[in-house]
Parts: sequence; structure tokens; C-alpha cells
Amino acid sequence: MSTKWVYFFGDGQTDGQENDRNLVGGKGANLAKMVTLGIPVPSGFTISTEACTEFYKNGEKWVDGLEEQIKENIARLEKAMGAKFGDKEDPLLLSVRSGARVSMPGMMDTVLNLGLNDDSVEGLAKKSGNPRFAWDSYRRFIHMYGDVVMGVEHTLFENAMDELKAREGVELDNELSTEALQELVEVYKGIVKESAGELFPDDPFEQIRGSVDAVFRSWNGARAIRYRQLNHIPHDWGTAVNIQTMVFGNMGEDSGTGVAFTRDPATGENIFYGEYLMNAQGEDVVAGTRTPHPISDLKEEMPEIYNQLVDIYKKLEEHYREMQDVEFTIQEGTLYMLQTRAGKRTATAAVKMAVDMVEEGLIDKKTAVLRVDPQQLDQLLHPMIDPDAKYDVIGTGLPASPGAAAGRIVFTADEAEEWVERGETVILVRLETSPEDIGGMAVAEGFLTARGGMTSHAAVVARGMGKCCVAGCAAAQIDYANKTLTFGETVLKEGDWITLNGTAGEVIAGKIPMVEVQVEGSFAVLMEWADEFRVLGIRTNADTPNDSQVALDFGAEGIGLCRTEHMFFEGERIAVMRQMIFAQDQAGREKALEKLLPYQRDDFIEIFSTMKGLPVTIRLLDPPLHEFVPQDQATIERLAQEMGLSSSALKARIDSLEETNPMLGHRGCRIGITYPEIYAMQARAIFEAAAELTKKGEEVFPEVMIPLVGTLEELEVTKKICVDVAETVMKEKDVEFKYLVGTMIEVPRACIVADSVADQAEFFSFGTNDLTQMVFGFSRDDAGTFLPEYIDQGILERDPFQTLDQVGVGSMVEMGVEKGRATNPELKIGVCGEHGGDPASVEFFHRAGLDYVSCSPYRVPIARLAAAQANIKNPR
Amino acid sequence: MSTKWVYFFGDGQTDGQENDRNLVGGKGANLAKMVTLGIPVPSGFTISTEACTEFYKNGEKWVDGLEEQIKENIARLEKAMGAKFGDKEDPLLLSVRSGARVSMPGMMDTVLNLGLNDDSVEGLAKKSGNPRFAWDSYRRFIHMYGDVVMGVEHTLFENAMDELKAREGVELDNELSTEALQELVEVYKGIVKESAGELFPDDPFEQIRGSVDAVFRSWNGARAIRYRQLNHIPHDWGTAVNIQTMVFGNMGEDSGTGVAFTRDPATGENIFYGEYLMNAQGEDVVAGTRTPHPISDLKEEMPEIYNQLVDIYKKLEEHYREMQDVEFTIQEGTLYMLQTRAGKRTATAAVKMAVDMVEEGLIDKKTAVLRVDPQQLDQLLHPMIDPDAKYDVIGTGLPASPGAAAGRIVFTADEAEEWVERGETVILVRLETSPEDIGGMAVAEGFLTARGGMTSHAAVVARGMGKCCVAGCAAAQIDYANKTLTFGETVLKEGDWITLNGTAGEVIAGKIPMVEVQVEGSFAVLMEWADEFRVLGIRTNADTPNDSQVALDFGAEGIGLCRTEHMFFEGERIAVMRQMIFAQDQAGREKALEKLLPYQRDDFIEIFSTMKGLPVTIRLLDPPLHEFVPQDQATIERLAQEMGLSSSALKARIDSLEETNPMLGHRGCRIGITYPEIYAMQARAIFEAAAELTKKGEEVFPEVMIPLVGTLEELEVTKKICVDVAETVMKEKDVEFKYLVGTMIEVPRACIVADSVADQAEFFSFGTNDLTQMVFGFSRDDAGTFLPEYIDQGILERDPFQTLDQVGVGSMVEMGVEKGRATNPELKIGVCGEHGGDPASVEFFHRAGLDYVSCSPYRVPIARLAAAQANIKNPR
Repeated sequence: MSTKWVYFFGDGQTDGQENDRNLVGGKGANLAKMVTLGIPVPSGFTISTEACTEFYKNGEKWVDGLEEQIKENIARLEKAMGAKFGDKEDPLLLSVRSGARVSMPGMMDTVLNLGLNDDSVEGLAKKSGNPRFAWDSYRRFIHMYGDVVMGVEHTLFENAMDELKAREGVELDNELSTEALQELVEVYKGIVKESAGELFPDDPFEQIRGSVDAVFRSWNGARAIRYRQLNHIPHDWGTAVNIQTMVFGNMGEDSGTGVAFTRDPATGENIFYGEYLMNAQGEDVVAGTRTPHPISDLKEEMPEIYNQLVDIYKKLEEHYREMQDVEFTIQEGTLYMLQTRAGKRTATAAVKMAVDMVEEGLIDKKTAVLRVDPQQLDQLLHPMIDPDAKYDVIGTGLPASPGAAAGRIVFTADEAEEWVERGETVILVRLETSPEDIGGMAVAEGFLTARGGMTSHAAVVARGMGKCCVAGCAAAQIDYANKTLTFGETVLKEGDWITLNGTAGEVIAGKIPMVEVQVEGSFAVLMEWADEFRVLGIRTNADTPNDSQVALDFGAEGIGLCRTEHMFFEGERIAVMRQMIFAQDQAGREKALEKLLPYQRDDFIEIFSTMKGLPVTIRLLDPPLHEFVPQDQATIERLAQEMGLSSSALKARIDSLEETNPMLGHRGCRIGITYPEIYAMQARAIFEAAAELTKKGEEVFPEVMIPLVGTLEELEVTKKICVDVAETVMKEKDVEFKYLVGTMIEVPRACIVADSVADQAEFFSFGTNDLTQMVFGFSRDDAGTFLPEYIDQGILERDPFQTLDQVGVGSMVEMGVEKGRATNPELKIGVCGEHGGDPASVEFFHRAGLDYVSCSPYRVPIARLAAAQANIKNPR
Repeated sequence: MSTKWVYFFGDGQTDGQENDRNLVGGKGANLAKMVTLGIPVPSGFTISTEACTEFYKNGEKWVDGLEEQIKENIARLEKAMGAKFGDKEDPLLLSVRSGARVSMPGMMDTVLNLGLNDDSVEGLAKKSGNPRFAWDSYRRFIHMYGDVVMGVEHTLFENAMDELKAREGVELDNELSTEALQELVEVYKGIVKESAGELFPDDPFEQIRGSVDAVFRSWNGARAIRYRQLNHIPHDWGTAVNIQTMVFGNMGEDSGTGVAFTRDPATGENIFYGEYLMNAQGEDVVAGTRTPHPISDLKEEMPEIYNQLVDIYKKLEEHYREMQDVEFTIQEGTLYMLQTRAGKRTATAAVKMAVDMVEEGLIDKKTAVLRVDPQQLDQLLHPMIDPDAKYDVIGTGLPASPGAAAGRIVFTADEAEEWVERGETVILVRLETSPEDIGGMAVAEGFLTARGGMTSHAAVVARGMGKCCVAGCAAAQIDYANKTLTFGETVLKEGDWITLNGTAGEVIAGKIPMVEVQVEGSFAVLMEWADEFRVLGIRTNADTPNDSQVALDFGAEGIGLCRTEHMFFEGERIAVMRQMIFAQDQAGREKALEKLLPYQRDDFIEIFSTMKGLPVTIRLLDPPLHEFVPQDQATIERLAQEMGLSSSALKARIDSLEETNPMLGHRGCRIGITYPEIYAMQARAIFEAAAELTKKGEEVFPEVMIPLVGTLEELEVTKKICVDVAETVMKEKDVEFKYLVGTMIEVPRACIVADSVADQAEFFSFGTNDLTQMVFGFSRDDAGTFLPEYIDQGILERDPFQTLDQVGVGSMVEMGVEKGRATNPELKIGVCGEHGGDPASVEFFHRAGLDYVSCSPYRVPIARLAAAQANIKNPR
């Protein structure tokens, strides 16, 4: 038996395809489903997605059997409609539309009015009794087919139309006479012949063939490919093609067309929402030349049709148990549904509808939790630009941290602090940021950088702080000397207002109004339900009491990563840190470290207090020491003077700390091993803080985490430092507290020897940022020169720093989990890279058997929902 | 039954331990073996290595049963010798010596003359009839025991001795009277009491206990630990303890002591070789206060003893089938053998003895091949400093590339070329070298660098070229401006002679005479035998026809890595390369590449011709483009002028190529993907060369290798470039040639997805240098700041850039092999990192199932021998 490529629907019948979206696409399945639900749909048939993938396998030729099956279905359609394709008496007209498994709106091609030629146009005129309508349809068809199938520049048709209107002295298309339109058809045919080098096809089946090929080919159009990349849709799915009897909303005042949603897609309110236009086709609603009426007006204008529509929308929502986006056409008083699909919605609406539908008994909690895209929640968690504001975007960069912010431009971190001190609101604009800028970043509203990617310093800090950031804005010319920020012709100066939209990566001149999106009641309900379904713990990456509190409010269950770097930077600490780095010997280092101890202890006391006994994972010093030394001449000279050195001698020592590949250099536990006194001081600060609070009766649970471990021995040496200090402090303070010492798993070798490392580690925390860098051999800071091209060429599907590379990096994570648990089945395992807040990655970590993920405070709700969905899909 | 910890030997009997070196150590096994062979050995017993490891497990306490068993064996010894331990009539005196599985000469402690106290010294005097001897032995015992067991500073004893000699008016120890020695014993006891805070133990069993503890503890002495690290001996083996009846070579003119080798350890000649001293103890031979006689003199002096010795050495060599190093003592005309063990030897001797012994029928070829340490062959392959030369070392660095060289100091690569041009011999002295220096490096005799490790640029290039190199010589202060090289007080200037010993990492002022070590006939024979046993192919890393020829002469079977970087550097090519890099667009790049094409094609023609149809694996461009751009102002200005740019504009473009972590940046196939025209040009150069030679009737077999592949897609894109060019060239030139396109496996991810990569790769070549960097997260260029400390602290056993880390990096190699062969069982797999010439790594690669290793030309014989040994040990 030969393969079935074509599936009929209409006249109350289908070929059984209504539940197989993979085979006939979403649109095709829904059309068939409406037929089975008894909803009026113009009859037609669907060419399967398999025919499309075969088309590409065959070198862009139709698969055997397709032509015959299309012809059979046309015959079936002719029979059902009582009309004949290409007939000069009662011609059957068809539409051809794409329809992939998931909606790719506007990405692929459509051709309407198929079947018209010089003969059948007469038939249409006769049958409709409306020659003007027939010729108008014909000229529309030539225009559309010429453009979409034959590649004729559409402005050629538009210019010809404009010329004709001028000649005829009319303003609107619909003022043209039948004769004028007939003339136009001839002109259009000439344009096609001239431009495409061949005649417009008058054989209706040739028209079908051309249109189907065009839809197939549009699957691999540049726009469609880009859309799939952005939305992570596999390239090998292919598209179905829906061929359907034409119905016309432009056949007079008892005809019309409209779009509607079964609920309000902006607010989620349970009302019938939409708009329509009488005597119009779909394009007219979209084009905006006439203003559509709200759907409620239809109740007055055509009460029967309106009631029929209400019945249909209720039936559809009842069936799909999901908000539907429908298109309809009224042809001479008869209602036809052209499409139904799950409607796009704002995050607010998504959350409200999911919760409402549970309350209405339409869906269960599990479905509600699955219904909301966790990524979309991001919209609810940051201020946004007022949707009603009008503005011009002067430049775009990477949407590195969502939300929006406006402020005055400053070019250095110090200036940011000075300006904010005197009450200004600022945006920090830098070529790139570095840990030295942290003070200024803490007070700025947002950051704009010219260099760096989604995981550049600015981007990571911004997401951590919940501030907005536009990064890697290559078009921004930043002139520090003259304090100007230039985009093409636009030159902004220090102090000028600027607005950043971090959600879209937009840079806007001036101060644009903002709205704080309210977290509604439904949101809290949904989160509660999510917590019922998830097994993965959710922690946060937080370095300060403030971040910790924000994360707690969002539902974090502990801190998964408290970086201690900033504890060496703030205020006067950096000076002491530098004394430590440039000390001649261990004694000198210890003296400086003693001065740093009280600062760090106080930091930990505040964080532990905030976290009220929840686990706090503290990573000991990780970055290379050269990140702490000054680079500017003035600071070097001042420091040299303080240290009694010549500035050239100090410069030489600073240079000697430089590394060729700092990412792979003297950092992480390598510092703790070569300078054990640094880790000993940090351990003392942690345990003295724990002791002090324990004495006061507060609960604390520090988890000390050693970074960059690649061998058991590294962990042994550094763990011993911590355990020795803990025991000493407990004795000194005569108090007991619980604590753990564990390790990051971020070097590939750590995954390989996880079984032996687990012998000493009391927990694992995967550092998937560094693991990704080393598994791929990609430096985050440098990958910007080739990674975009890798995505463009399809070499990588996604940026592996945003979404975990499950095949490569994920394998190493799985190996680490498996080996670690082989040694210690109870081993607590988490992840604290940026991936901990990415829904697809969270699902992977759930499947890999991790105990928790840790993410920025502002992503905690996203991770909670993603973890719930992961466990619903893969229960454990 | 309780565990046996102690094993008796002597009196013709043993406890069966003679073949269990792991249990009783090498020395203990050999002593027992000599007993079973009927060779006279002073009776004794051995405490097992297990007792030592138990000692450490027990918190440095003796294991249960040990004390009883020692006492039982002392009783057995007393019975055998007819003397009594601590007796005042006929005391049994004992020696206590360490004895690990493998010899660790001088690393652990020894105590002699155990059993002496105020009573038994009288017995010894009586029994020997020599009171002076008795009291001399007693004072030696207190000194040795006080030093080794009780931790008394040995200079205290020496000072007391000097005082006494001065008081007595004698010059030599043996001129002291019995009475003076008796006085000295009292003084020594006082020193012990004062310094150790306790009395010298007069209970003989206490003396045993103290000495055994001291030997056990010396296993974990700093010297011993360091020795084990350097020699890769596991720390958990422990040492045995040999307790043996004392014999004395200093009991008069019919007594004596000596050491001998069964063959000449320097040349390998089959002659009895050694020296002896009459009326002396072992220390006297070593101390050098008296000059020992050649062993041949003994033939005259004590012909019977000599003949007995000859019989014994023949019996031992016959038994062990290996050259032995023996120690003997003659006590009052009776010969005792104190030790036998395999003797240390030079590489020359090792090779000659192995081959000779096969010819003598002592051993078979397999044993001969196993007998020579492949690493040691290195000595035979490079010029050496004349062993008779006297010289002072002014500084030491890493022994980065073996051999020695002398030349005049120059400080830049350009000067090296100029000086050599005018007939000088030069050593290039640099802070560090870079690819730009390649021209000067090619003409210099050797390189000295102040920075960088064993795998720094200078080190790698030196080993590849077979030149000597001392790298990372931190003590060398290099002042480019004044052209001076300073070590402490010594200031050398440009043009001064300097000698480098790359084998030892030594820097020597002046010109020291050299010897070219001849590769003897035996060497060639041994290599031939090695080839009979190995299955692993041996290729070479060679970039030039000259290197290729050297490697062929050493037995290479192809080129495993031909880097193409230098093809962009030499002469005027670099200028064209820079035009390419700074071209505005693809057309500009292609124009420059066209100029580079003929150069590269000619390079390949020469290499292919040299290799005569053997496979030549060519790696396409790998380093980041910024390695090719000028850094010095003069060159930048000249280049800017040529390009019609301002020098600041050019500088800005150079800066924009800078990377934070170039190792993980825009390099390898990432360049081939973003600039496909570069790989296309290289492919064309390769295939045009292949076409030209094929037309001439010469055989060629290029294997094009894509670097830094981490995904199948990267290989697909770059392979397509190569295949398209190959097909085009074959058509253009109307000729067919075979070629392969394969990939390096050097990114961890490539190992993980090796199954999918193998779908496209026609061969794999592991790049274990980069793989090690990424698996550990170690930058070769920066690891110098912590790697030495890691080795010192025992965190890593070996430098993973020298010897493959089998547990970590090795696992990834095994994964890559397994997954690659799962897809393609016939997949050709090799390795082209530095590890291909390291014997331990070669053995691993053999076990992992690789087809070949590739190494520097000068390491080819080492790899051949190592591969043979690997297959003998693990046949496949």
C-alpha cells in the first residue's frame, strides 16, 4: 500500500488526522477537529509534514503518489462543494496555507484565490453575480501568486495599482471599476511575464503545484530558519500544507471577517474578546486601513451569527481546555471558522487563565502548572517600559538582563557612586565592566556595555542584582575621554537621560515612562501549586543580605552560591587585599588577612541572620589575584608610595601576576593551596560568624564550598584547612554548630574522578559555567567572535552558556552524579551556574537526579515552575 | 593463625621469602636468594613491608605479634651463630637496614653494631681479642644510633671526637688508644643525655625497637618522599627492615670490604669491575679518605677470595640474568656477601648488556627489549657535555629539551639570524619565545628562557627540533635594553659564550667541550628487536623536510602532526599573512591568500617527497590570528604605512584581536568556519602538491586534520571545504590521489560526542596537550605558578603535560576511542601530543587500542622501544 500523504476534512468527514499534529501540523489537525466537533469549516485537505520532509530528501521534488492524492482530494472537494476547480461556470477557488507542528506566525507563505484564470473569473462573476468582486479577486491572486510563487517584486504591482488609481482619479482600491480591474489584470500579467520571464500559469493544477512548492520552500526561508533558531524548533520537522475552499468576507454587507480570543489575551479575563470588519477580507483587518469593531458590536449587528460564534468558542474552549485564538469569515450571512489555535498571551494572562481554569473545573492543577512558560514569568519580575509609550530605539545589543530602567549616563563606576550620592539616577555605560566596578554597579539602575556576551561580567552581575542590562552593543561608540556615547548620528553626553530595555536589548534616548508589573494573586497561587509538584530544591545565588532577602521573598530555600569576591573589593578592603597580595611572605599576608577577617565575619553574620538557618553555600575565593590589583597609573603610584616601593617596581610585580589564560590559571583552590592562609582566614570568618549567632540562639548552616577542584587531593588539602579552623573556633568559642565542606564540580576532571572526590566531599555543586567553558574549550569572554556565527550556521542550536548543552556538558554532569552517588548514595548535589535559572536546563538537572538548583534571586519563581514541570513530565 | 611479619635467612635456610620482593623488599629477597644459592651471607631476618604499612595505620605503633616474632628470630639467630644478643661473653651484634621494593639508595636510615652496651663491649673485646676494635665499634654505634634514632645533631659527636684527638695529639681516628675511645664513649653518652633528654638505651631490645622505628619513620622522611615523587614510587608501599649479624672488614689485614659490578656499568663491557679496601668498613670505601684498589688487585692479594668472588658473581648473573651490583666484606679471611642487586648503568651500557646477554644466551630478545629504560635512550640521542669537563653552574632551570649546546648569547631572533649569517654560533636568550621567533630559533644552537614550563613554546619547539633548551630559569634576569643576562653577581653580555645543559637544566658561563655520543651497533640491533614486538605505529611531529628526514632516519613510519603555522611566518610570508588578517572583507583576504598559496604548496611538495608515500597528517591553521600580528611599534608603523592606515587605527585593530583567554578563543576550526577561505587555501596547497607529485609518479598520502573540533557540525563544515577543493583540484589537474580528512580530538566535548564525530572523521588524532589543559583547567603557560607546588605537596604525582594523566585525561581518551570505534570499528586513531614520546604514556596508548603515536623526531627510538615493551607487557 502506498503511503498516505493527503488528508481530507469537511462535509462532516475527516481521514482521522484530527489528533495528529505531527503529521498534519497544528492548523490541519485543528481544522479537522472542528469538522468532527460539527463546527462549520470550509472543506479542504492537508498535505502532511512527511510530504515536506520527503520533498527535501528528494532534491525538492514531490514524493511519488503526492500528485495523484492531491488530484483525488480535489475531486472529493469538488463533489462536496458542488463546484469545479477552474470551471467557467461555477469555479471552486482554493487557499493554500502552511501549517507546521507549532505555529510560526507570519514566517511562511500563503496563496489565496487559487483556481482563477481568464475562464474561471467569468464563472466567478456569473456565480456571485458580482463581476467587480470576481476581477478584484483575480488581480489579488496574480499579485499574491506572482510575489510568493514566482518571486516578482511586489512593489511592481503596487506601483501599477497606484498609477491606475491616479489615472482613474480614485483614492481607494475599492473605488476602482470592474473595467479598471480588468485592465489591471492585463497589466499584472505583463509584469509577471517581464519580471519572472514566464507567463502567469492559467492551468489551475499548475497553480496548485507552484503554491505547494512555495509553501514547502518557505520552510527553509531565511525568516523561518531564524524563527526556528530563536524558538528552538527542530529544522527537520517540515511543514504541512492546507488547501481549503475559499470563502469570502467581502461579498457585501452580509459578509465579513474577524479574529477573536476566547479570553482577554492581555489580562486573562474570561471574556470573549476580538474584532471584526464587515465586507472585508482577513488582510483588511490586519492592514489597518479600516478600523475594526469590537466583537461585542456584532451582537447588535448580526445577533444570530454572534450567538453561533459564542457557542463555537465555548465548544472549542471546552474541547481544548485552553484559550483559543480563532479566525472566522461570514459569507453572505453564513459563518465559517477558518482557524483555531491556542492563543498567545502575556505572562499576566497566562498565569490568570491557568489558575482560573482550575477554579472553573476546566483543567487540573497539574495542567495549570504545565500551561505557563516559566521563561515568560520573567516579564512579571521586572519593571517594564509603559506599553503605551512611543519611543525610538537608537541601538540594540544583547538582552542580557531583563526589565527596563532610565537614568543619566555616567561612564565610570566612581562617577556612578558620586552622582547617586547627590541624588541622581544613573545608567552606567562602559566598554565592559570588571569586578572593580562593583560599587558603581550596585548603585546604577542598569548597565550598557559595548562588549561582552550574555555571560559577560556586566550581564551576570546584572541578572544577579535583578538590574537591567544591555550588553555587547557593538554599535555604541564610547569615548571615555570626551564622555560621549555615540550611535551613528546621535551623540549623548554624560548626564543625558537614557532608557534601557533589557528584555529586548534596546537602547532609547531620553527618559521613557515605566510600569511596575504587579504580581497578582493568581501568581502566588500558581507558585504554590508548582511547589506541590516539584522535588528539586530551589536555592539562590546571592552575595549580600539584600539579595538574600529578595530571593527568600521569591521562595528560595537556601543560598546555593555565595561568592566571596566582593568581600575583598568593597570600600577600604581592597587596599588591605592589595597589601596581602604584595606582601613579601606568609607573615605579611597573614597580617593583612587579619585586617580583612572582621569585615568578612560581619558580612557572613548578616547573611546567616537573613537566611535563618537555611543552608548557605559559601564559595571560597575563586578569581585570580590579578583581578584585585590596580591597573590605572594613579592608583599604582599611590599604592607604591604607601608600600614604600617605586611605582615601576610595583608595576613589575603587577605585571608578573598577568596570565596568558587567566581562566585556566592560578585561581580557585589553586590559590587556597599555594596560599593556605587566605582560605584559613575565610574559614575563620565563616565559623566565627556561625559561632556568634549560635551563641545568640540563632540557627545557622554554613556549607563551605571549594572551587575548581580537579583531584581528590586538592579537596583533601583545602578541606583540612576548613575543618581545622572549624574545630579551633568551636573550642575557642565553646559552641557547636553544624557545617559541611563540599566542592564545586566545574573542571571536567572532577566529573571523571567524582567517585574519589565524593569520598571527601560532603556535597557537590556543579559549576556549569566553567564546565561549559572547559568542555567546549570556549572562553565566555572571547566566544563573542565566533559563537553568533555558530548559531547562525546551525553548528550549535543554542548558546551553551544560556541553556545547558545536554549532549556534551550534560554527559559530564551525569557522569559526575553517577560516580559521586556510587561512592556516597546520599550525596547532596546541586548546581549553581547560570543554567540553574534556565527552564530547559532545570528540566535536565531534575532528570539527572540533582537535589537542587541555584539561580539569581529574580529567577527563583521561574526555577520553581520549571522544576514542577520537570517532575510532572519525568516523575521521580 | 596470626600473620607472619618476620622472615629468617641464613645457615642455609629461609622462610621462603626469596622471590617475594613486595613482601620483604628487594634487599631482603636478594639476601634470602643468596642463602638458597649457597652463597655466604651473614644470617639475619627481614621485617616485612606489611609491618611498616601496619605501623602507619596504627598511628606509628608496632602491629600485634611483631615484637614476639622479632624475639623468636633473634633466638633463632643466636642459635645459628652460637652467640648471644647483649652477652658479656660472646655478644651477637646486629645491623638494621631499610629495604624497600625498589632500591632508594641513601634515602633511608641504617644502624650498625646493635647490641653493644657497657657489658657486651667487654664480651666483644674478649671474643675478638681486640679491645680497641670493641670500643671503636661501641663509640661508632652510639654516634650512629644517637644521630639516626635519637635525633642528636651529629656535629656534636664530631666536635667531641676532634677535641679528643687534639687532646691526644693524634690526627686520625684509628690512632686513638683504647682508653681514649673508652673516654669518648662516656662523652658521647653525656652528649646523648644532654641533647635527647634521655639516657642512651643499654637494653639491646630497646636498641632494636628504636632502630626499627627509625627505619619505618625514614620511609616518610622528607628525602625519601621527594625521591619517591621523582621516581614515581607509590607512597603506600612501605619499607622492609633487614636485621643481620654484623661482620667486620676492619678486624685486621685479613679483613676488608668492597663493591663490584658483574659488568662495566659505564660501557657495558663483560668484565668484573669494582674496588675494595683492606682493613676497612663500608663507610671507608664511600668516604674517600683512603683510595680503594681496583678489584683486579685482589687476585694477587687474596687469590682464593678473588676466585670465590668470581664464582659468586657468575652464579648471581647466571641466576638473575642481569648485571649485579654486589657488596662484600672479608672478616678475618672469610668472605661474606652483604648485598646484591641489579646495577645502575649508563644508557650505552644498558643497550650493550641487553644485546650481549642475548648473544650469550643468558636472556631472550623479549627480556632484552624490556631491560632498557626507554627514557634513558634520550642520553644516546643528543650531544652531551664532556663528562671529564669541569665547570660551574651559574643557574638552573627546567630541563626542557635534552642535550647540550654552547654558543654566543643573543637576545632576539633577528639577531640570531644576523649572527649566524656571519658565521657565529648562538644561543637565543629570551624571557619567553613566541611563534615570531621561529626563524631565529631554527638557526640557534639552543634556547634559554626565563619564563614558561616544560611545554612552553620554547620547550616544545626545542624538542621538536632536537635542540637543547633550559626553560623557566627564574633566576635569569634578562635586560633587553642593555643586552645583559644576569645571574646574581654574574653579568653576561651579548656575544659572551654560554653553555646550556638541557638534560640537567643547567646554565654554564663560557664554552664547555662537548661529546657526540655514538649510536653503537647494539643500539640498532635493539631497535630492530623492538620493532619485532611492537604493534603500535610510530610517527613523528615534523613541520619541515629536514625534521621529516631526521625522523625517518630514526625509524618514523609517517608524520602524525605537520603544523602549518610556520608556513605563515617565514620570510616575506608574514607580511602577506598580515595583509590577509587586516583585509576589509573576504575578497581582500582571498587576494592575500592567493599569494600564500604557492609558498605552502612548495612546502608540502618538499615534505611529501621526503616522506615517499608514507602518511602525512597536516593540521590546518590552529593558532588565533593575533599570534601573527606585530606587537612592536616600528613594525606596526611600517605595516600601517603599507596599508594606508594611521598607526593608531592599525593599533586599534590589533588590539581588537586580543583575547582574554586565547587558549579558549577564536582558533582552530573556529577560524576555518568564520574564514573558510583560509582553510580552502590550505587545502588547495596540499592537494595541488599531491597532484603535482602524483603526476610525476611519486606516491603521496596526505591526511588533512581539522583542529579543535567539539561538534560533528564543525567537522562537517570544514571537511566539506577540503573535499570540495580536493575534487576540484583532481578535476583541474586530471589526476587522482588518495587522501583522508580527519579530526583532532583535543576538546573534552569531542571525546563525549566521538560516536557522532566518527561518522564524518576518517581518522582521529588525540591532541593530548590541549586535552590535558581543558580536562584539568590548567593553562600550560600559566601553570608554572602552582604546578611545582602541586608536585611538591604530592597533589599530583607527575606533571600531566609530561606524562599523561591516565585517570583523568586518559579516561577521556578511552571514551573517545570506544565511542569512535563503536561507530566505525576500523577508525584509524593516533595521538600527536607531546605525550606520544613519553614511555609511560605510550604504554597507556597501546592499552587504549590506538593505532599509532606521533612524537618529536628525536624521541622516535624511545617511542619504538616503549611501544615494544607495552606490547610485551599487554599483548594485543
